[in-house]
Amino acid sequence: MPNSFIPVMEVTRGTLVESVHFGAAAVVDPAGRLIASLGDPGLVTYLRSSAKPFQALHFLELGGAQHFHWSDAEVALMCASHSGTDLHYQTVSSMQAKTGLQEADLQCGTHPPFHKPTALALAARGEAPTPNRHNCSGKHTGMLAQCVLRGLSKQNYLDFNHPVQQANLQTIAEMCDVPAEQIGLDIDGCSAPVHALPLYNAALGYARLSDPAGLPAERAEACRLITRAMRAHPEMVAGPDRLDTHLMRAAQGKLFSKMGAEGYQAVGVLPQAIPGRPALGITIKIADGDSDGRARNVVTLEILRQLGLTVPAVEGLEAFWDWKVRNWRKMEVGELRPCFQLQFH
Amino acid sequence: MPNSFIPVMEVTRGTLVESVHFGAAAVVDPAGRLIASLGDPGLVTYLRSSAKPFQALHFLELGGAQHFHWSDAEVALMCASHSGTDLHYQTVSSMQAKTGLQEADLQCGTHPPFHKPTALALAARGEAPTPNRHNCSGKHTGMLAQCVLRGLSKQNYLDFNHPVQQANLQTIAEMCDVPAEQIGLDIDGCSAPVHALPLYNAALGYARLSDPAGLPAERAEACRLITRAMRAHPEMVAGPDRLDTHLMRAAQGKLFSKMGAEGYQAVGVLPQAIPGRPALGITIKIADGDSDGRARNVVTLEILRQLGLTVPAVEGLEAFWDWKVRNWRKMEVGELRPCFQLQFH
Repeated sequence: MPNSFIPVMEVTRGTLVESVHFGAAAVVDPAGRLIASLGDPGLVTYLRSSAKPFQALHFLELGGAQHFHWSDAEVALMCASHSGTDLHYQTVSSMQAKTGLQEADLQCGTHPPFHKPTALALAARGEAPTPNRHNCSGKHTGMLAQCVLRGLSKQNYLDFNHPVQQANLQTIAEMCDVPAEQIGLDIDGCSAPVHALPLYNAALGYARLSDPAGLPAERAEACRLITRAMRAHPEMVAGPDRLDTHLMRAAQGKLFSKMGAEGYQAVGVLPQAIPGRPALGITIKIADGDSDGRARNVVTLEILRQLGLTVPAVEGLEAFWDWKVRNWRKMEVGELRPCFQLQFH
Repeated sequence: MPNSFIPVMEVTRGTLVESVHFGAAAVVDPAGRLIASLGDPGLVTYLRSSAKPFQALHFLELGGAQHFHWSDAEVALMCASHSGTDLHYQTVSSMQAKTGLQEADLQCGTHPPFHKPTALALAARGEAPTPNRHNCSGKHTGMLAQCVLRGLSKQNYLDFNHPVQQANLQTIAEMCDVPAEQIGLDIDGCSAPVHALPLYNAALGYARLSDPAGLPAERAEACRLITRAMRAHPEMVAGPDRLDTHLMRAAQGKLFSKMGAEGYQAVGVLPQAIPGRPALGITIKIADGDSDGRARNVVTLEILRQLGLTVPAVEGLEAFWDWKVRNWRKMEVGELRPCFQLQFH
């Protein structure tokens, strides 16, 4: 597994390379052609939260959003690792109210909001974070809404054998062209199932989300709803100062983007967003898990650049294109520097 | 440079390896024998804050601690990347008062204290962090105290050509057996010079700090003062819930330990702490910079174990020996797992 990775980003200080991140990536079109790669595109790893659009799909193709009158912003929050701001809290509460769910139904656990000012404000009020502040509360609400829609038990909705999880697994299998029994299952940070599959296959799934023309009509419609909702409501998918939100804003509809834990990143590029190119699915894994996100940010933007999609540095994305290393007095002492060339096939 | 590293720690989830950190290390005795290594012990990288004991040495061999009546706890703080607690703040203020220095003399910049409860308490009081809360304030106070002791200008004490920095560079060169002109110089997070040298040479310097019997008398005495102070006052060297502090407490005098930024770690093991072994210097670099410290923690403890130094899990070190990955509901979902065998020479 270590041999699957190649150096993808260097951190310099003065004239010396001080640190290096390793990674792997796959770029695939909806027909399953491997367009480009870094390291081993067959690397099997967990999608983590990058699976959320797939996990929303079955509920939506059953007509769940119309049934419960969920807005596009609420659909985007189903696919989110949100920052737990008041906006996110209110939106997930609204989804629950429309569906007859309670916050206490969520079995995701709790953590302080990713958004630091919100976390500080809660702490200042002496208020413990509740499940709706959890970055996965939209996904869990979607799973529970599928229970309600299908008349299934809510108590055990996270069990691998629960019909909701079985349906979501089957959807991932179909979208990514991997037999369900070959998908590695384990438990995520939020206690929901996680799915392990090759980078190539996950990228294929993102390509099909981006251009579902070849899929059955209900599924294609649900894919279009997801990508429309995420692109129209990037503030719901992540939050302030986070790559997914700022990248989608800056790309002005050309792509949708969803991070996962442990250095995973997926992007779906729409047809003709890169002139002459079909839709593309891109999946990236930073080997070390990239806990502060610096390698994910740089490698994602550089892969898009090498593919020919120049994303202007607007609306907050400047920070993600500014690859200087600064010290505590704001002196520039080094830089983050991609050190790969995509291998085109 | 990427070829200098080998896989050193895996992160599993269920039966799958989800992430992997790469690294390199050197273990050297005071005679310069390379006892063991991981990857390339010749890897040239910055010591960052692991250089602090060396940067304290010249001031101490000039008799600075006696001259200004600095306690051993204060000497330990010179060598620290402290957490900015009230104890650290008061101690560095005391050093400055005894030396005729002002907090405003420090040119390290500011950052919120590493110790989160302290950072929250400052924020709740609406109090901005001042330079003495900076993790390097003890080192800077030591550099300024050297200016006072030697009658040198304080205004430009961070310049590479300032006599304090020249003396500290020469001390590192001698301790690590590298010509001063071959040491790479650049600017650290705190605006002070950083020093790049091979892992082997930095480990040699730590071995000599641990057993300075072969050094000139004043230098040997200063080395013994540093290692005595750090081992006796581990709470000064880092802070609550940090590896250096808890490792030194648990090792009960057998070693001293000093982290650096970007995944650097150095440990000095005292003579006969491992039965039959001389003093050892150990230097470790995690390739990706290890921003959350998980690889540094595991690799450091595992290298000590493979060298034959079993550190009991006492006084807070349990947390560093507990290599389970838990999710937001405290379920065990994976583990941190060293994946190397030291190569003995």
